Amino acid sequence: MDAYLKNIKEWALVTQAARRFKTADRSVVVGPGDDAAVIRGPKGFYGLLTADMLVEFVHFKKGEDLKKVGYKAVAVSVSDIAAMGGQPRFALVSVGLPRKDPARRAQALFAGLGQCARRYGVSIIGGDMNRSDRLVIDVFMMGEVEKKNLVLRSGAKDGDVILVSGPLGGSQASGRHLAFVPRVEEARFLVKHSKVHAMMDLSDGLSMDLSRLCEASRLGAVISEEDIPRNPGVKTIAAALGDGEDYELLFTLAPKEARRLAISCGRPSSPFRFYPVGRMTDTFRGVRIRGRDGFLKKLPPPKFKHF
Amino acid sequence: MDAYLKNIKEWALVTQAARRFKTADRSVVVGPGDDAAVIRGPKGFYGLLTADMLVEFVHFKKGEDLKKVGYKAVAVSVSDIAAMGGQPRFALVSVGLPRKDPARRAQALFAGLGQCARRYGVSIIGGDMNRSDRLVIDVFMMGEVEKKNLVLRSGAKDGDVILVSGPLGGSQASGRHLAFVPRVEEARFLVKHSKVHAMMDLSDGLSMDLSRLCEASRLGAVISEEDIPRNPGVKTIAAALGDGEDYELLFTLAPKEARRLAISCGRPSSPFRFYPVGRMTDTFRGVRIRGRDGFLKKLPPPKFKHF
Repeated sequence: MDAYLKNIKEWALVTQAARRFKTADRSVVVGPGDDAAVIRGPKGFYGLLTADMLVEFVHFKKGEDLKKVGYKAVAVSVSDIAAMGGQPRFALVSVGLPRKDPARRAQALFAGLGQCARRYGVSIIGGDMNRSDRLVIDVFMMGEVEKKNLVLRSGAKDGDVILVSGPLGGSQASGRHLAFVPRVEEARFLVKHSKVHAMMDLSDGLSMDLSRLCEASRLGAVISEEDIPRNPGVKTIAAALGDGEDYELLFTLAPKEARRLAISCGRPSSPFRFYPVGRMTDTFRGVRIRGRDGFLKKLPPPKFKHF
Repeated sequence: MDAYLKNIKEWALVTQAARRFKTADRSVVVGPGDDAAVIRGPKGFYGLLTADMLVEFVHFKKGEDLKKVGYKAVAVSVSDIAAMGGQPRFALVSVGLPRKDPARRAQALFAGLGQCARRYGVSIIGGDMNRSDRLVIDVFMMGEVEKKNLVLRSGAKDGDVILVSGPLGGSQASGRHLAFVPRVEEARFLVKHSKVHAMMDLSDGLSMDLSRLCEASRLGAVISEEDIPRNPGVKTIAAALGDGEDYELLFTLAPKEARRLAISCGRPSSPFRFYPVGRMTDTFRGVRIRGRDGFLKKLPPPKFKHF
């Protein structure tokens, strides 16, 4: 993913939008800036709304298998809903299709969209189809979450253990960026069985995304190099922290809850495994990493690609 | 609007999607094919969901004032919600921005988005911002409607009077296609004070859109050339029927209801005016027009632009 753009996204939709698009509507529980917006829902529930756009040449190659692109387009939004603790329900899909072979392209794309939607119980109930020079797919997803199970980025507490739901890095090299498994089951398990303080999904790499969680929670974090789980073939810690597109969950728990989770997931029967990678702290802001030499270093600022 | 594309949209999202994306979810009241999808909502209400994408060079010129484009991007979706009888509430806006001057472009665009959103009581609560060769804006809108006030395209009855909410044609020539007034007030007035059988908004011209209403309602229609209200400067009936982008309401009422509406809107104090243009019939399918010569003609099939 394009870190600078993600930054523009944050900057634009969190600051500009927060200013321009400020709302007095009391039905809006959480506006722009988290993985999904939160609105009041039917009794006991919140509604969750998220949108994710994929653009040819920016998010996927020209020759890419459009079935995979379709799968990913839905999976990215499913991951956003999961990161709020919720269950995805409905999607609308807007597509801009190049003039050439629209039907053949649409077929492959729709096959992928449908495959991912079925797998996660999402009903595709509408959308818009247009002509466009470059293929562009925008998925809007609506989900729901029991009020008590809603988790934001901003709820982390001093001393919390920081965990991730799987090994990191190498997503693009391995093709996993198009075929990842959004962590709905893991997130639902967590919100039902643990007291999760803060959660988000890892789209831009642990380094960037943990900085965001810290900022939202007004805290700092220390992670430990030797605790960062890496995918096979990921040779450097920089790759594990910066490659992005992991779509694993990043979340924080009070130490006692983290121990309880370690015990319950340590059983051979547990389908899930979670990896503690560090601690939240109120003694500084930002993210620091303890190297294998035992010294604490600031994380280098993530490399922004140019717009 | 690009009629052939609209046709692909219908074809793709109504047939392909209806096949591929069929849902067993009983929360989905109406899937693809109407102006908005309908889902079960809080007590007494339905939720309405719609998506509309605007692409540079396809829906607006390269040099176009982006404030106007932003206004339109929201207004199109507002019009869709209105056409279901509903009230727009929340929007997410996904934007693909060209590399050059993203901040300046975003500012103008956001000003327009915000202007239209405020005017119609819509809270913009999220979205996605990306890099893209061509400017592309996709607006997702969520609205709500009291269950008793929901109106679909499919509810027209034999003998119904067909009405429109304003004069037609010349939208692009006059610039109104970027600055139209979505007919929320009119639609809300209608569903509250009349028994509206069927309704939709006129995006592709009366000729194309009435055909769709007929198809959805499994009926035919006769319109009368001399009754079609035309905008100033619209010289031919073909232009009034085919120009598109009117964003007026097209709806049907039982004759008795139509008379009642004519009386209530005939008063000088009435803020609204509605124009009867024809009748629904079960003696044939499709749309026929009675010319000034008194003869009934089939409407020529609308010209499809090539994809």
